[in-house]
Amino acid sequence: MYLIAEHILTPKRGILNNYLLVIENGTIKQIRRRKSVEEKREAKEVQILIPGLVNSHTHLPMSLFRGTVEDFPLSEWLPKVWDIEKRLSRKDCYYGALLSLVECTRNGITTVCDMYFHEEEVAKAVQESGLRGFLSYGMIDLGMEDLREKELEETMKFLDYISGEKFDRIKATLGPHSPYTCSKELLLEVKRISKEKNLKIQMHISETEEEVMEVKEREGLRPVEYLEKIGFLSGEEILSHGVHLSEREISILSMRGSSVVHNPISNLKLSSGVAPISEMVERGVNLLLGTDSAVSNNSLDMFQEMKVSSLVMRSMGKTVPPERYFQMATSNAGKALGIKIGEVEVGYRADLVFLEKGPNLVPFEGYISLVYSANPSNIVGVMVDGEILFQEGEYLRIDAERILRKAERRYHDGIRSEEDKMG
Amino acid sequence: MYLIAEHILTPKRGILNNYLLVIENGTIKQIRRRKSVEEKREAKEVQILIPGLVNSHTHLPMSLFRGTVEDFPLSEWLPKVWDIEKRLSRKDCYYGALLSLVECTRNGITTVCDMYFHEEEVAKAVQESGLRGFLSYGMIDLGMEDLREKELEETMKFLDYISGEKFDRIKATLGPHSPYTCSKELLLEVKRISKEKNLKIQMHISETEEEVMEVKEREGLRPVEYLEKIGFLSGEEILSHGVHLSEREISILSMRGSSVVHNPISNLKLSSGVAPISEMVERGVNLLLGTDSAVSNNSLDMFQEMKVSSLVMRSMGKTVPPERYFQMATSNAGKALGIKIGEVEVGYRADLVFLEKGPNLVPFEGYISLVYSANPSNIVGVMVDGEILFQEGEYLRIDAERILRKAERRYHDGIRSEEDKMG
Repeated sequence: MYLIAEHILTPKRGILNNYLLVIENGTIKQIRRRKSVEEKREAKEVQILIPGLVNSHTHLPMSLFRGTVEDFPLSEWLPKVWDIEKRLSRKDCYYGALLSLVECTRNGITTVCDMYFHEEEVAKAVQESGLRGFLSYGMIDLGMEDLREKELEETMKFLDYISGEKFDRIKATLGPHSPYTCSKELLLEVKRISKEKNLKIQMHISETEEEVMEVKEREGLRPVEYLEKIGFLSGEEILSHGVHLSEREISILSMRGSSVVHNPISNLKLSSGVAPISEMVERGVNLLLGTDSAVSNNSLDMFQEMKVSSLVMRSMGKTVPPERYFQMATSNAGKALGIKIGEVEVGYRADLVFLEKGPNLVPFEGYISLVYSANPSNIVGVMVDGEILFQEGEYLRIDAERILRKAERRYHDGIRSEEDKMG
Repeated sequence: MYLIAEHILTPKRGILNNYLLVIENGTIKQIRRRKSVEEKREAKEVQILIPGLVNSHTHLPMSLFRGTVEDFPLSEWLPKVWDIEKRLSRKDCYYGALLSLVECTRNGITTVCDMYFHEEEVAKAVQESGLRGFLSYGMIDLGMEDLREKELEETMKFLDYISGEKFDRIKATLGPHSPYTCSKELLLEVKRISKEKNLKIQMHISETEEEVMEVKEREGLRPVEYLEKIGFLSGEEILSHGVHLSEREISILSMRGSSVVHNPISNLKLSSGVAPISEMVERGVNLLLGTDSAVSNNSLDMFQEMKVSSLVMRSMGKTVPPERYFQMATSNAGKALGIKIGEVEVGYRADLVFLEKGPNLVPFEGYISLVYSANPSNIVGVMVDGEILFQEGEYLRIDAERILRKAERRYHDGIRSEEDKMG
């Protein structure tokens, strides 16, 4: 397959104007300027081409009840969310995940990193959607041994499930929820399994001041210092939020090669604080970008994350260049996940997004336009492994209308009516 | 013309499900539940219907050089912008305005309030676009009498121009730039003309701490106190920014019925500060919403403004309900401008926007979904005075492609090459 792009925005190499891409077996085989007459005739022409965006932290099923828990700080928000989650069936999780995946596809997200329960249902949904997924069952043991065993068992079941079926675009990861909800024993066991089976780890870290204090009280150390002390940090971990980090903790993360997922909108919405992004960029921490769930966002839109974070930095008189945000949303994630995605480069997977200029991208100024001005209305094509999933408003692999209908019905018949009864 | 809407979101009355709208001569004639078979057959069906959004503060021609002045605070940003503005021809202003108007149309903005120079060109562009415009020539006298006379003369010429030609959707307003760039004499003369000719006034107010201090040094009072003292405030004025306001100043604005335009993204981007929105809402100040220019934004997208402001409020532990933001973007503006727009109500102009749900608006939770989750990809129709300007991706009144091409060329041939020479 041939693609000719007016502008190719690569996260690291720069901007390539009027290049030809040759895609074979889902892989980018060639990138060059010279084009034969036949190639030109057969090629699909696109205005702007970027690597697919990676949503490095989310909880897909939660879109099913977006808009129901509004305007609380995290500490009050969580119990309300847990109340709803108690009522979620496996099918709810399946349809909630599918709903999110339709939105991700629409918005140019080609890879999602997820942590939730009923994660088998999430895996099924991701597989159907055609997106790439790094999925984990979220474990919480609160220091209790029997709970720990149960959680590890669930994880093992999930690992089996993923390896048993044909999930070609999905990798399992390990998901200890966080240092404040998981015991040292659980964390060390996770680390052991990670090494043995070569699995990435997804975990929440230092989202609020309160949880930092909790760990400090229990362990005498701040969360990242504590993880360092117990030998947890090895570069395989993808740590979400990192809002409250000391200078020393940033140094540790940089030294260990740990990845940190920035979730700017969720952090603002839940009054959690502002992550020290410009400091982490300066110290060379591998930064990724995530939406968190639609219940603390209320969108799954990486353009919004990039712009909002840059605005918050500017409000503090700091500047993180737009190309850095673009890297967080693409190539840095590829690096963290250990897979050739997030760059337009020979040998990389053909996970690509096509944009059209529209009035908001005129005049076109490369990364500045993409990060500060683009929005989902510019997206006209989304491809994973060379397979087109979305084109000119049409979903080519999934029945999006049916999914939206089903999700809306599950919400109204189950979750919302219960809520109403409570209210 | 008949419209049947699954959901009508009105800023004040609430949400109406499955209603019929009858539109005659550009006006909403009827809203009712009962529909005849014929009405149903002839009606255009829409999923979500809202009043057209009002961008209450912008500088339309500036989109022509968006992306060129990035990451400076206002005090350093302004001289760089002035350097570019010196090179702008009348035609540049015309095409810059048209470029912005294509984006506004695409994004469901049906009314724009503008202040710039070569404002006749802006008026021509607005008229061609079919949008509604409240336009002013921006006056600055810096205390100099001859400059003051020249500026007032320019304004008079602009008023003549507007009244002379057939500008049916445009009203002239008066545009003294701000209390720190305009003398008392100019402000009082503006007030006199406003009363005599029944014209609204657009002005910047208290955008930065520095300008507040400048006025305080010169007049011994903060800007709003000063305007109150000289008798400038009467409710006809639409004051943009209002970032640095004391409690006393908020009281004055509330008492006088002045309108304040909140420009959250521009204020963050230029490190100006955060406007006391929840305080102003509490005190009953008539709040509007604006994008400012695309050079300090870099979009003209009212959904972004609503969401970003709500997030910044939440980050401070404050909550401004979504319906309030929706009012700022619609009905409050209608009130400030003294015209029946910004509400879906009998007797109001048929300035309407149609949205389709898409995955990001499922489940649909009314104002919450609109303010926290909607984006321009949901917009499928835009109407002013009952005339459809945008429908399913097509611009029915303007040649958008030609405008984008022309604007891009003017940028590259004029502004950018000069910039490059300088750099």
